[in-house]
Amino acid sequence: MNEILAGLLWYNLFLMASDMTLINPSETNAFLARLAGIVGAAHLLTDPADLAPSLTDWRGRYTGKALGLARPGNTAEVQAIVRECLAAGVPMTPQGGNTGLCGGATPDASGQALIIQFSRLNRIRSIDAVNHALVAEAGCTLAQIQSAAEAAGQFFPLSLASEGSCQIGGNLSTNAGGVQVLRYGTARDLALGLEAVLPNGELWEGLKALRKNNTGYDLRHLLIGAEGTLGLITAAVLKLFPLPKSRVACWLGLTSPAAAIALLERTQAAFDAQLTAFELICPLSLSLVRQHFSHRAQIARIPHAPWHVLCEFSSSDEESALRERVERFLAAALENGIENGVTQEIILAQTNAQRQNLWGLRENISEAQKKEGVSIKHDIALPISRIAEFLERIPPLLAQAFPGIRHIAFGHLGDGNLHFNLSMPEAEANRRLQTRQPEANRIVHDLVHELGGSISAEHGLGQLKRDEIRRYKSPAELAAMSAIKQALDPEGLMNPGKVL
Amino acid sequence: MNEILAGLLWYNLFLMASDMTLINPSETNAFLARLAGIVGAAHLLTDPADLAPSLTDWRGRYTGKALGLARPGNTAEVQAIVRECLAAGVPMTPQGGNTGLCGGATPDASGQALIIQFSRLNRIRSIDAVNHALVAEAGCTLAQIQSAAEAAGQFFPLSLASEGSCQIGGNLSTNAGGVQVLRYGTARDLALGLEAVLPNGELWEGLKALRKNNTGYDLRHLLIGAEGTLGLITAAVLKLFPLPKSRVACWLGLTSPAAAIALLERTQAAFDAQLTAFELICPLSLSLVRQHFSHRAQIARIPHAPWHVLCEFSSSDEESALRERVERFLAAALENGIENGVTQEIILAQTNAQRQNLWGLRENISEAQKKEGVSIKHDIALPISRIAEFLERIPPLLAQAFPGIRHIAFGHLGDGNLHFNLSMPEAEANRRLQTRQPEANRIVHDLVHELGGSISAEHGLGQLKRDEIRRYKSPAELAAMSAIKQALDPEGLMNPGKVL
Repeated sequence: MNEILAGLLWYNLFLMASDMTLINPSETNAFLARLAGIVGAAHLLTDPADLAPSLTDWRGRYTGKALGLARPGNTAEVQAIVRECLAAGVPMTPQGGNTGLCGGATPDASGQALIIQFSRLNRIRSIDAVNHALVAEAGCTLAQIQSAAEAAGQFFPLSLASEGSCQIGGNLSTNAGGVQVLRYGTARDLALGLEAVLPNGELWEGLKALRKNNTGYDLRHLLIGAEGTLGLITAAVLKLFPLPKSRVACWLGLTSPAAAIALLERTQAAFDAQLTAFELICPLSLSLVRQHFSHRAQIARIPHAPWHVLCEFSSSDEESALRERVERFLAAALENGIENGVTQEIILAQTNAQRQNLWGLRENISEAQKKEGVSIKHDIALPISRIAEFLERIPPLLAQAFPGIRHIAFGHLGDGNLHFNLSMPEAEANRRLQTRQPEANRIVHDLVHELGGSISAEHGLGQLKRDEIRRYKSPAELAAMSAIKQALDPEGLMNPGKVL
Repeated sequence: MNEILAGLLWYNLFLMASDMTLINPSETNAFLARLAGIVGAAHLLTDPADLAPSLTDWRGRYTGKALGLARPGNTAEVQAIVRECLAAGVPMTPQGGNTGLCGGATPDASGQALIIQFSRLNRIRSIDAVNHALVAEAGCTLAQIQSAAEAAGQFFPLSLASEGSCQIGGNLSTNAGGVQVLRYGTARDLALGLEAVLPNGELWEGLKALRKNNTGYDLRHLLIGAEGTLGLITAAVLKLFPLPKSRVACWLGLTSPAAAIALLERTQAAFDAQLTAFELICPLSLSLVRQHFSHRAQIARIPHAPWHVLCEFSSSDEESALRERVERFLAAALENGIENGVTQEIILAQTNAQRQNLWGLRENISEAQKKEGVSIKHDIALPISRIAEFLERIPPLLAQAFPGIRHIAFGHLGDGNLHFNLSMPEAEANRRLQTRQPEANRIVHDLVHELGGSISAEHGLGQLKRDEIRRYKSPAELAAMSAIKQALDPEGLMNPGKVL
């Protein structure tokens, strides 16, 4: 009887092994040789020096190990790689531009995973100006897609700080956001169709360029935001828009976040879809920019005010007409400015260069922070109607736990997304603060959750928030997510250790 | 040995029985008694006369049977009903306003199913004007939600012919569309969050009122469009928009669909999001309206032209400003009208009454058709760039198979969705045509598929297209859908016989 149990035990161990890992080095070599046969030896990296840049995430928080890195040149090669990985039980870590902020594209420490990099899938397959759609492969950079659209007299509105290097496959897998979500939506809203290799190695050809298509479960929306755990996106049909004829940006000083929200309401009512960005900037983040980028001329012109808003208007009409409407609107806002919460200073960019300078200040915030040292970053979303309450209640809660703590709040007020970052003015104190990050997260995320918000607005979960989210999602939702993962990826080989 | 096999057989039969159906009448009565205990006797219908209206779909194509009909009064009662059905193995058929066009809310012929009707879940739970969001229960009619939004100075843009009786739960389950998708998207795009009872009886509380929330798989988008096969939507957070200050509608005569598409392009480039509807109307559909609604004054004023377009512009600016821009644009379109494919006749509604009259004509098309007898209806979507080709290639294909056939094409050109209906002028020939519907569908749907389109743009699959879709979806996609269904509803009790 003991023999039988022992035999069963061995058999099960063997099953687990053959399911989940390669048996021995010679098999590993044979596996890598098969991959080299698929992508060509030049596109299969195994030398540690070649792998290094792909083993650490952009923020340098995570470093993993990998069996190797494959750079497929087309969808068929991606599919062939996935099938080899399935057969050998090798986990896969898809990686785009490696600009993610949550470690979603970094392999774990096991060294068992194969990194699949999409940089060679970088063709714009087609542009259909009449149907306002473009088909891009997963490895196209966001900037590449923006210019391809513009070259065709069209507009692709997704826009992020990392657009020069981030890839659309990653943008879709993390449902990236940015500054124009208010008008055009997130990456999810901009994808009409997808092509993807599913965890079972089958190719899903879902490149439909349609605005309406109600024929069953929407696999597209399941893969978008799944961070590569339900399959590998190889191409997408992206929505295009008419290229705006004119853009007008203005900078306002405001007395409080509540005043900024009241202004947002009035501005939306007056401009609807022509309001394309509405950014909130806290005093500290601006003074850091003043401090570290004082050489920038336009800084001097920025009003001193408790809070700041940078908003942008776009129109398919002539600039003169848009500018005239904006000026009329701002003049009205300035009447009884105090009671409207608008300080008596407004900067309306007169030229495109001035407009870009104002945006430059906004985009310098993160860099100015970096110069101050590391900080604990939060990417939160709230109902817009609760943001003022959050910004009122959070400082005392944090001050109590971390006397002298500094917080920087800035971001996309128009869609309820704030970047809320914590640091200490003094280096040693700041170092100590970083070691207490879980405590700080708990205080911030608990209040966000209480106010009906999200602890990840546009960055995803990756490794960073995979455990944290379990505190805020119901068991019912987590169970449904696990059931879907189990159904589509029973071997658990698709980007293991992320999301779930 | 035979005994053992026989025993196993019996055991399996018993399992199947206890899994899938009630064992006997007394158990059925006990089950219904438990339901009556949940919803109250007055809200559990079993009398055939009371059930009749819910057993047949709106178009009268399908009639099923049911064990009974339960009308829960709140989410907790829906959850309790689902748990009783799970325990007893009773299939559930959710039903909203019963206005669906594909039989998705009609039970099958087994008589085993319980109909769950949502009309009592009809509260607007909250409106947040600052966050531009509203929480509605599944049984709220679309019209009720539109007026609740308007009462709060907001705008809910989803709009359909059946809005007086269709319910938002059904609109979301079928991802309903309508005339303003061009600007505001489909029902899917208008839902920020959902509350739903999942097939395992768990409640998913996903009523997040957020524009950005990247924290795992998007269950919301999986339930939307699933036609009740993955769970029962009990409430939703809906997106609101600023109420447009002004609306201008105009009617144009055009030489061809290609000319209409060229006009659409120019209009979108000139008005972007201010173009809120762009409808194509074929000559035959208009002449049927002329014939059956000749008493309508405005009919006389409609130009005689090969094709027609009804488009609407909305703006948050004064009407005078919008009207002035539209007039300038139309004047330009009329210069070299012929070369632009615009016939020399344009009607620009001067009053709101005139605007509604023009829409009245558009909405009379279906009714005018009905007066001509039944027709074979298709709800198709195409890339806008392929619509002219479809309308050129389909007539000869149909004429070859059905000499003398008439086709009516009208719909939402702005989002690529056409309603394409077939009939014979003479009653007896038309009756014969109806018996050959599968042949006609095959000709239409094969061409739609070849051109990259969808055989169900905004009506869903229900029972009507459940088998038809298997011809056009890849095995890979169908397998993924089945895996998801199996994972979330292993007993197959959620609206069986629909979608899959």
